[in-house]
Amino acid sequence: MPILPQPVQNLITAFERLPGIGPKSASRLTFFLLRAPADVSKKLAEALSELQEATTFCSRCFNITSAGNVLCEICASPKRDESQVCVVEEPLDVLALERTGGFGGHYHVLHGALSPIEGIGPEDLKIKPLVERITSGGIKELIIATNPSMEGDATALYLKQQLLHLPVRITRLARGLPMGGDLEYADQNTLLRALAGRQEME
Amino acid sequence: MPILPQPVQNLITAFERLPGIGPKSASRLTFFLLRAPADVSKKLAEALSELQEATTFCSRCFNITSAGNVLCEICASPKRDESQVCVVEEPLDVLALERTGGFGGHYHVLHGALSPIEGIGPEDLKIKPLVERITSGGIKELIIATNPSMEGDATALYLKQQLLHLPVRITRLARGLPMGGDLEYADQNTLLRALAGRQEME
Repeated sequence: MPILPQPVQNLITAFERLPGIGPKSASRLTFFLLRAPADVSKKLAEALSELQEATTFCSRCFNITSAGNVLCEICASPKRDESQVCVVEEPLDVLALERTGGFGGHYHVLHGALSPIEGIGPEDLKIKPLVERITSGGIKELIIATNPSMEGDATALYLKQQLLHLPVRITRLARGLPMGGDLEYADQNTLLRALAGRQEME
Repeated sequence: MPILPQPVQNLITAFERLPGIGPKSASRLTFFLLRAPADVSKKLAEALSELQEATTFCSRCFNITSAGNVLCEICASPKRDESQVCVVEEPLDVLALERTGGFGGHYHVLHGALSPIEGIGPEDLKIKPLVERITSGGIKELIIATNPSMEGDATALYLKQQLLHLPVRITRLARGLPMGGDLEYADQNTLLRALAGRQEME
């Protein structure tokens, strides 16, 4: 039985280790690159090699930043409001919130959510540094923006319990019907949340 | 507006150039690699750099093979039947047919299919070398195994016209109901083909 040349097999195996890429996609990507201009795989290889060398995490909020920076651009900016801190699971969540342009405070990236099933406990997340940040003062409001999932909810609840004794207001992003959505297609839980969280019309 | 560190943005851009990977998947893959063991992105980068250097195409059938080989393992094998040649669109199709264990002949990889919409004409495919292979003799049967798609059908038809004058039997893979399928769920075209191609029971 003739098998694939080793370099081809190696790349397929390497692609398969990425999330959301199965054996079929891995083969497709590999065969695409075999015929693509050499430049495509070269650029990808370079970017990969550079990624971990050239980036680091902000020492205060744990968002991603360029290597050599102690603080990320947001933490270093004098224009941002230090009294508000938004707690998110991932650096990508920071990006999503920044895109809205509706938040002018600082962030704290937990790097995950509590998940007993996956064996992720409080010590795996950046919770201790968060408690320390709050204890050292200056933060008035903590906006918890973990995902509206079971893990995100559990994390939010855990954080609240941990921070209860500290003089900080703890809020959470609103739940309800998504904008542009159709009530008819909203799932049961979203609808229940929207009902429970109903507000007076102004 | 704070943007992503350049190395992160570079990798997202490089991933986006791959087929089937949009901006969202590209970000996810990048942030996965940021936190994954350094080894994951290192292996991927190495495999990418090696891919085009260490592989080449068989000079006879244009299947993928290790660099340095003039012929691929199948073309070089004395056990394979040289009188039968199966024509496929992609190297992955060779793999699929080899997995069945039901074909003992040689292959010819066209590297695509005719597609006027994408501007792929006969000169973009390995059709001329195929005609030369047949002209030089020794091939009794050509099994056309292009995809059962519009492009695959057009390619099969074109090949037949080009090879009509040559003393070679030209066959095509059977069309019909897929094994394990359910007649109820078969699409109209497949069912029509299955009807038209009905065979006497033995």
